[in-house]
Amino acid sequence: RKKVQIFQYIFLKWTLALLIGLATGLVGFFNNIAVENIAGFKLLLTSNLMLEHRYFTAFLAFGGINLILAASAATLCAYIAPAAAGSGIPEVKAYLNGVDAHSILAPSTLFVKIFGSIGGVSAGFVLGKEGPMVHTGACIANLLGQGGSRKYHLTWKWLRYFKNDRDRRDLITCGSAAGVAAAFRAPVGGVLFALEEAASWWRSALLWRTFFTTAVVAVVLRSLIQYCRSGRCGLFGEGGLIMFDISSSISTYSTSDLIAIIILGVIGGVFGALFNYLLDKILRIYSVINEKGAPFKILLTMTISFITSCCAYGVPWLAKCTPCPTDLKEQCPTIGRSGNFKNFQCPPGHYNDLASLFLNTQDDAIRNLFSGGTENEFHMSTLFIFFTAIYCLGLVTYGVAVPSGLFIPVILAGSTYGRIVGTLLGPISDLDAGLFALLGAASFLGGTMRMTVSVCVILLELTNDLLILPLVMLVLLISKTVADGFNKGVYDQIVIMKGLPYMEAHAEPHMRHLVAGDVVSGPLITFSGVENVGTIMQALRLTGHNGFPVVDEPPFSDAPELVGLVLRYHLLVLLKGKMFTKERVRTGDGEVLKRFGASGFAKAGSGKGPKFDELSISEEEMDMFIDLHPITNTSPYTVVETMSLAKAAVLFRELGLRHLCVVPKTPGRPPIVGILTRHDFMPEHVLGLFPRLHLNR
Amino acid sequence: RKKVQIFQYIFLKWTLALLIGLATGLVGFFNNIAVENIAGFKLLLTSNLMLEHRYFTAFLAFGGINLILAASAATLCAYIAPAAAGSGIPEVKAYLNGVDAHSILAPSTLFVKIFGSIGGVSAGFVLGKEGPMVHTGACIANLLGQGGSRKYHLTWKWLRYFKNDRDRRDLITCGSAAGVAAAFRAPVGGVLFALEEAASWWRSALLWRTFFTTAVVAVVLRSLIQYCRSGRCGLFGEGGLIMFDISSSISTYSTSDLIAIIILGVIGGVFGALFNYLLDKILRIYSVINEKGAPFKILLTMTISFITSCCAYGVPWLAKCTPCPTDLKEQCPTIGRSGNFKNFQCPPGHYNDLASLFLNTQDDAIRNLFSGGTENEFHMSTLFIFFTAIYCLGLVTYGVAVPSGLFIPVILAGSTYGRIVGTLLGPISDLDAGLFALLGAASFLGGTMRMTVSVCVILLELTNDLLILPLVMLVLLISKTVADGFNKGVYDQIVIMKGLPYMEAHAEPHMRHLVAGDVVSGPLITFSGVENVGTIMQALRLTGHNGFPVVDEPPFSDAPELVGLVLRYHLLVLLKGKMFTKERVRTGDGEVLKRFGASGFAKAGSGKGPKFDELSISEEEMDMFIDLHPITNTSPYTVVETMSLAKAAVLFRELGLRHLCVVPKTPGRPPIVGILTRHDFMPEHVLGLFPRLHLNR
Repeated sequence: RKKVQIFQYIFLKWTLALLIGLATGLVGFFNNIAVENIAGFKLLLTSNLMLEHRYFTAFLAFGGINLILAASAATLCAYIAPAAAGSGIPEVKAYLNGVDAHSILAPSTLFVKIFGSIGGVSAGFVLGKEGPMVHTGACIANLLGQGGSRKYHLTWKWLRYFKNDRDRRDLITCGSAAGVAAAFRAPVGGVLFALEEAASWWRSALLWRTFFTTAVVAVVLRSLIQYCRSGRCGLFGEGGLIMFDISSSISTYSTSDLIAIIILGVIGGVFGALFNYLLDKILRIYSVINEKGAPFKILLTMTISFITSCCAYGVPWLAKCTPCPTDLKEQCPTIGRSGNFKNFQCPPGHYNDLASLFLNTQDDAIRNLFSGGTENEFHMSTLFIFFTAIYCLGLVTYGVAVPSGLFIPVILAGSTYGRIVGTLLGPISDLDAGLFALLGAASFLGGTMRMTVSVCVILLELTNDLLILPLVMLVLLISKTVADGFNKGVYDQIVIMKGLPYMEAHAEPHMRHLVAGDVVSGPLITFSGVENVGTIMQALRLTGHNGFPVVDEPPFSDAPELVGLVLRYHLLVLLKGKMFTKERVRTGDGEVLKRFGASGFAKAGSGKGPKFDELSISEEEMDMFIDLHPITNTSPYTVVETMSLAKAAVLFRELGLRHLCVVPKTPGRPPIVGILTRHDFMPEHVLGLFPRLHLNR
Repeated sequence: RKKVQIFQYIFLKWTLALLIGLATGLVGFFNNIAVENIAGFKLLLTSNLMLEHRYFTAFLAFGGINLILAASAATLCAYIAPAAAGSGIPEVKAYLNGVDAHSILAPSTLFVKIFGSIGGVSAGFVLGKEGPMVHTGACIANLLGQGGSRKYHLTWKWLRYFKNDRDRRDLITCGSAAGVAAAFRAPVGGVLFALEEAASWWRSALLWRTFFTTAVVAVVLRSLIQYCRSGRCGLFGEGGLIMFDISSSISTYSTSDLIAIIILGVIGGVFGALFNYLLDKILRIYSVINEKGAPFKILLTMTISFITSCCAYGVPWLAKCTPCPTDLKEQCPTIGRSGNFKNFQCPPGHYNDLASLFLNTQDDAIRNLFSGGTENEFHMSTLFIFFTAIYCLGLVTYGVAVPSGLFIPVILAGSTYGRIVGTLLGPISDLDAGLFALLGAASFLGGTMRMTVSVCVILLELTNDLLILPLVMLVLLISKTVADGFNKGVYDQIVIMKGLPYMEAHAEPHMRHLVAGDVVSGPLITFSGVENVGTIMQALRLTGHNGFPVVDEPPFSDAPELVGLVLRYHLLVLLKGKMFTKERVRTGDGEVLKRFGASGFAKAGSGKGPKFDELSISEEEMDMFIDLHPITNTSPYTVVETMSLAKAAVLFRELGLRHLCVVPKTPGRPPIVGILTRHDFMPEHVLGLFPRLHLNR
């Protein structure tokens, strides 16, 4: 590349990082404003009706608005972009691992993700906007990298540098980091999330670019919040972006505190693993329902919405009214929207502690649970009821057809659990109840998601208190270890359930007993260096392979010799260009380059390249020949057939390959044995071929 | 592996991480206590003598103590462990890249690094203890992983799991992160440092382990500081571990502030690049002196120490006495050791601002510069003089034979520079002078070390103020970009100058024009599957190769066939075991395994395995045969000779190989063309073979 091209590339790289940060920050903020205003309107309406003692009307309004919001979110999701349902983190993770599934990052997914998430969160579902924000960030990055739509000629010449797997992956890594940063206002946490959970390949150059993006997000959010502080954003108050303030100066903790924390961590890990187990079962049931079609999806969503509304409005009636504490700075009972002391059905001067948790946005409920110095504010029975309700609702909500994150339900359930443990262990530990709530949330996060450093840093940035770091780490370490004893992390579980061929970073133990040649599945289709058009067309029609080996035979070489690998996509471009010859001769590289230019073979955006069905090759052309040498990758990575499968898997994974050629060990045989793809390394495939390995495990 | 072995491995992995954290934390704290006490005693003695107006005696005491400390540090360094001189970060970086240089992490290096660093820092040199702490952490990790000395039978059976490159590298990554965490009390910064600067390979599993280690360090330091707060550690006061507190609440910054910061960043980048350029020149001069022998090294160190003492004691006389400000909470002039207002030669009620910077420990000087709300405390001339002196002293100090970090000189010079710019740009920006000092330090760090995220997070953790993050990032981004236009980062420069074969993460552009076969250098020595002992002995004696290809020939196979690769080390073990046969027959794997066990061939600690010279093979045995099949790695990674060198380099680097077999493309030739090692990819080697590429660049 020339100097000017390098400059263009670098300039664009950083501009894109900036744009991703800006766009994600704006979307994140828009999302928050919308949720705060819609949910705020709903809650205010309900509480005003309740103040007038019109309890049934209040329920109708509350449940009705929830139902409408849920139905519209589900409709968007079911009809426009089914891929937008769920968290999105597993999909982004799989994409960054090299799974090129269609529509994961399509513009329609982005649209539904944004508006579906707003609908879902404001409908009062027990779900969060954090996972969807990650997916949104990734979609934005993908969209910007593709540079608009080719259909409308919006693409830009400079963007050709990003039409390859690596650069696209880098952009999407930045996008997912920006998503976390926007969701939690945690720039460093976002980077670490991308590093720990999302990305499969990492270069230190990427670290800096990701950090730049998340810092842009942080700056955007900060300025917009400052703008809104003067009340120009409707009901958007302090609750907008969660930022907890547990400044309950914990300077010291004793051994008995540590014992309490260890117990908390162990049980939290068990609960987290149980959550994953149950979620898996429920998702399998749901997938049966969801497969029946869009109307069923919407119906399921509305059912869950109705149940949630009943819980949120009905359960607080169980709680007794508590007289307000006398020595309070806060207002009690709260008249506005947020605050620890909801009035609900109570007489003046009293509050309903269950309503403070249930009849609230999730962010506010979490803030109430985290608030320090409030040991006696919530009754034990209240906490138990809320914990059970949220744990179950969180489980049944995730699989419905709306964009739904898992962070918030897990944090909610975890912090309630933490408060319960804190109260029960009060005799041996005198840490603050708010701190216990935070640690409980950490233990649940560790138990379900198995993320560690990023959760740690996100909690650090949310609370802005460096001193809790060792405690949070201890809890996370314990709960993750305990939960790892039972099952996999929730995102890994979902990746497997969705059937995405995710390559693990390490080779499976059973692979050590096999060699590469064992798992190669035939029959292998090879092309000659100069091949008959008809043969190619037939091969493309009959198989879905994305790569074909090219073998030179006499007279082009002395003996059969592997030239390299040709990609389906490149074949389609070449066939579309119709560079055919009557005779079996080599045309040379120059002409092809002249015809297509350097970017003619660049990878197009998802689902945008030439399609096989669009080719129109006449009968006469079918008998002609085409020279594959110019488009053949002449140095594909190869392994010998006797190489251990584990080593081949490491090679495949570390280099991020899509095809790995297997060559014979002994001379005198055809120069290629087969091609290994991602699917050939999947445990299902390998164990399907060699069931005995399964038994030996 | 069996379940119990996996458990042993995991248990040990975490225990080692814990021990590394504990040990590094303790060493870091010991280092600080020692420095604070020695330097404190020195400074108190000097100032007491000055209070009695015995100025010349004071200088003698000051310079004499410095000289003695410097000489002893240099003696340790020159006679016991020359590898301990300098920062150590480049060496650790190279080790983690796969350069297995002897003595980098030896126990003697650790010893000298700890005590040499204490001597060097307390001698008042313009150098830091941060780089040496990283090296110390790495040495501790290496020592723990090796499990004591084999000589004294101190090694532990379980530790056999760590006798391989990967696990050892993981431990050392943890160690270097712990070093940074101990030096700056920045656990997250330590992890990011290891990630960004030190490690060449990274797995997300490592992230968590590293974080655990740094958190242990943080906890250890915190408890020890709490213990010392009651005055039980001699002169160890608050100054112990740097932790700056610029709580100068910068809630807003305007556009003109940003312009000031951009100017600061650009000039800072230029100064940083200039520092690297000059340092390179000076190190080249010094290496000529240092090569003359240990006495010259010590003499050089003493000369620099004398110059430093003259500066520190002499230059403050140039400054005029300033009357103390009246509205101060602090004491003025300071009688104790730390504080912004040094008395020096001044009459009561006055202070010498130059002495506050010069006649102080570096940590205290930095704290003085960073302190907020002190716009008029330092005169412009003072800042100029101090900046010039520190910039030059920092340059001439680095190459001397004491453990010397670059962080502190760069931060010192940078923060002075920041204050100068802040004062000069006062008309357009009203940010605090302390904040300008911090940003100046960031710009210098970005300009010299080119680290970004880790510097950002370290500064964040040092100042405990999330709001400055965007400003620091902006400055770092600018200064790094500007400096990258001139030269490489200082650590990369030192790695190159030391001749360490560091593999870059990306392939050089000139490699695209070459194929793997081009750079293979002959003659290639291959062994037969069952080889004559004499032939092997001769090959081992004549060459220094670490790997030899093994080729089976008839009658063992139909045609010559590549069996695999045998390592020098394994050959030596096998020869020492004398498993010879009279005839050319295969002995089979079973017997070898029975004889040596699974761990017989494990990699020993640095310089501990069997040596060639220790072998005693009789004449008779020389004619016997040895079966190499059991010790041959039968699936080495291979590339075809026509593969692009760039792709081969990526393969080599990503998989962390030491040998890469090059096989022929066409059949009918010997089954291996050559072996590529790390050295074959070095630009010097490649460009030496193909000088034309150099011209075309």
